[in-house]
Amino acid sequence: MPNYRVAVIGGTGPQGKGLGYRFARHGHDIVLGSRAAEKAEVVAAEVTERLSGVEGAGVARGATNADAIAAADVVLLAVPYDGHDELVASLPLAGKTVISCVNPLAFDKRGAHGQVVNGGEGSAAESAQELAPEAVVVGAFHNVSAVGLWGHDEFLDEDVIVVGDSVEGKQVAIDLAAAVTGRPGVDGGKLRLARVLEPFTAVLISINRKYKVHSGIRVRGLETGR
Amino acid sequence: MPNYRVAVIGGTGPQGKGLGYRFARHGHDIVLGSRAAEKAEVVAAEVTERLSGVEGAGVARGATNADAIAAADVVLLAVPYDGHDELVASLPLAGKTVISCVNPLAFDKRGAHGQVVNGGEGSAAESAQELAPEAVVVGAFHNVSAVGLWGHDEFLDEDVIVVGDSVEGKQVAIDLAAAVTGRPGVDGGKLRLARVLEPFTAVLISINRKYKVHSGIRVRGLETGR
Repeated sequence: MPNYRVAVIGGTGPQGKGLGYRFARHGHDIVLGSRAAEKAEVVAAEVTERLSGVEGAGVARGATNADAIAAADVVLLAVPYDGHDELVASLPLAGKTVISCVNPLAFDKRGAHGQVVNGGEGSAAESAQELAPEAVVVGAFHNVSAVGLWGHDEFLDEDVIVVGDSVEGKQVAIDLAAAVTGRPGVDGGKLRLARVLEPFTAVLISINRKYKVHSGIRVRGLETGR
Repeated sequence: MPNYRVAVIGGTGPQGKGLGYRFARHGHDIVLGSRAAEKAEVVAAEVTERLSGVEGAGVARGATNADAIAAADVVLLAVPYDGHDELVASLPLAGKTVISCVNPLAFDKRGAHGQVVNGGEGSAAESAQELAPEAVVVGAFHNVSAVGLWGHDEFLDEDVIVVGDSVEGKQVAIDLAAAVTGRPGVDGGKLRLARVLEPFTAVLISINRKYKVHSGIRVRGLETGR
């Protein structure tokens, strides 16, 4: 499996930091991106400390978002949905493989639910693809818990479902998933199915609240197929 | 756990027949409903044959939809989304616990995807609740494979996620899930999250096509919480 150079946009948030840590732990080099390079460098130092003594680990550093992207082949969008479109439109994403794990969620007294994007015919990942037409955008890592990512289990007992319209783009996320779960990601179909994966996180949040757990999903029945 | 009397609307289709079989196998009495009683009776006879020799099995019979509902406490809606609203509006559902496993899906050359219901702010289950305001509607069993249900494994290695606005209503589906998976269903939150569970089936269909499997989902991390 190739080692990737991954820019993590939103790299100082719990999802970005946790995924970056997992990628670096398994040999990928990561650049955590933030609006302010100093803030990203502080978090990168925290990740580097967690990586000390891990054989074969990649390098973690921090940079501005633009510098992080310039240094990478792969860009992970791990930003809040609030302000997502403006941020994505401002990033130099042309020619990159972009992985979106952005979850457009809303919260009210009845709990978490999905925000409606484009009248039900859109998703954060599809918006990113429209805003960055010269990038290859795929969706993945929507449903992994930040707590688990920063925790001490070698791998999370979950599956990463990857959606996209480019087989090559999906393969990058399928490869990177192995750093998180110990298994390749699962090809879940076309990019438009991000409309399902993104709000599915609201179901897991509901389960977490009800049962006081950190839940995730596994896909069963695959053993015979891969 | 109580034994339920379950009317299966759409009981001659693969999902209804398979779920009815699993319920009856574990002691619940089922009435498969159809527009024509004779058609339902033929399928009920097929289910009864599969139940022969199963200790503690419930009774399976066939009837018209209205007769099936009259004889039951619980109604499983296992009908195609096409024509769903008209059918539900015609059924005598007042006072019943109604479980919807209806998946509003569409298919084109890019595969399966979710149909947009009410501009992204609806689902088949929510439509059923609106059309039958004196029933308690919950969503469950959306993602179990009909092939697995009619197969020979004692239980499916999957989880049934249950959503609804009534705790009592959800408990019925949580109980019935044990007949399918060997474990209680998982409370996944409010009824509006059926917007996610229904189209999630499109992701599983995509996985099935890609990997030539019959996939399902399990929720991980629950062990400590139940």
